[in-house]
Amino acid sequence: MSGYSPSIQNLIAQLSNLPGIGGKSAQRLAFHILAMDEDKAKALSDSITSARRSTRRCSVCQNFTDGDPCRICSDPTRDKSTVLVVETPREVESFERMHEYKGLYHVLHGVFDPLNNKSINDTTIPDLIKRLSEHSEITEVIIATNQNAEGNATALYLSRILSPSGIKVSRLASGLPMGSDIEFVDDLTLANALKGRISLSEGAGNEA
Amino acid sequence: MSGYSPSIQNLIAQLSNLPGIGGKSAQRLAFHILAMDEDKAKALSDSITSARRSTRRCSVCQNFTDGDPCRICSDPTRDKSTVLVVETPREVESFERMHEYKGLYHVLHGVFDPLNNKSINDTTIPDLIKRLSEHSEITEVIIATNQNAEGNATALYLSRILSPSGIKVSRLASGLPMGSDIEFVDDLTLANALKGRISLSEGAGNEA
Repeated sequence: MSGYSPSIQNLIAQLSNLPGIGGKSAQRLAFHILAMDEDKAKALSDSITSARRSTRRCSVCQNFTDGDPCRICSDPTRDKSTVLVVETPREVESFERMHEYKGLYHVLHGVFDPLNNKSINDTTIPDLIKRLSEHSEITEVIIATNQNAEGNATALYLSRILSPSGIKVSRLASGLPMGSDIEFVDDLTLANALKGRISLSEGAGNEA
Repeated sequence: MSGYSPSIQNLIAQLSNLPGIGGKSAQRLAFHILAMDEDKAKALSDSITSARRSTRRCSVCQNFTDGDPCRICSDPTRDKSTVLVVETPREVESFERMHEYKGLYHVLHGVFDPLNNKSINDTTIPDLIKRLSEHSEITEVIIATNQNAEGNATALYLSRILSPSGIKVSRLASGLPMGSDIEFVDDLTLANALKGRISLSEGAGNEA
């Protein structure tokens, strides 16, 4: 039983539905909001509805966008031959921040995870397959799913389904992060770094 | 420079204004909200405005409430002779959850913190003084400010200003938390526990 008024209880309940916000944090956030000026609370509230309302998925790459196609897909300077496949829009932002990648993206909005009843149809993999069949200028797909069981299953599935098409399929290298101490690196990372070792004797790096 | 649309950027900015929400968490929350059903996002947004709009301060104890006076102040079964002084409404909830305290509260909504330019007038201490002068049935004030520099300064100020009134003023005991290992307890806590030691030889505890 809580002594809070129904509207405060509702606010706390709504906030604690958000990822990473537990009961204590939700209370702290709620009381911060209650102590805000009313127009500031309104601005926060409006930012939620307005962002949610104006945001849709790009019909080409499935990234969140306010126009369709999105800015990246409609940018004439981008390299249309390469598609980098990520799990979520946040990862598009990570690559864009790096300013190294000039190709296009495809956002899966999920991963293939049969153990948790997540099938291919819970992702945008069907849209990716359709996109590749309609855009013959795409010659390379780079899979940038996360380095975990679901990310690996998704990468494996994609590489198998795309292999007959003749499109070059690659995946981000797995290995030691920069600045890491080998002593403190976990076994799987170390095993991947060993397996993916790059020859230095021939003076050649990996092909991108 | 961010590749996000203006409405997403605004949502991230609004969320990162909240306490304990950094840039990364704000992005994660924003994308969770963007992936919600539109009616669920609306419910979250509405809970903010509606809680903020319907919540005011109780004219007696200054706690957040939807009616005035609040449920605790208008509850005839509560002991009207005792007022427990807390810094925020969250602490009222902590005491209520305990089901041990049956008196009334006073919420300061801040602390006396001269080093950070927070004066008495940034708290509801003036309201407390007025309340005590108008309600002669109040015979005890229990100060439950936090155990830190600001909480201590506030408690000291209150005890000094209230001492001429003849009202009994006490403060929550400071000492070892239950289940604590003396080996791992910080020096100040240990010093307080020693200073506030309770005589066992007479078979008497502290007076409440």
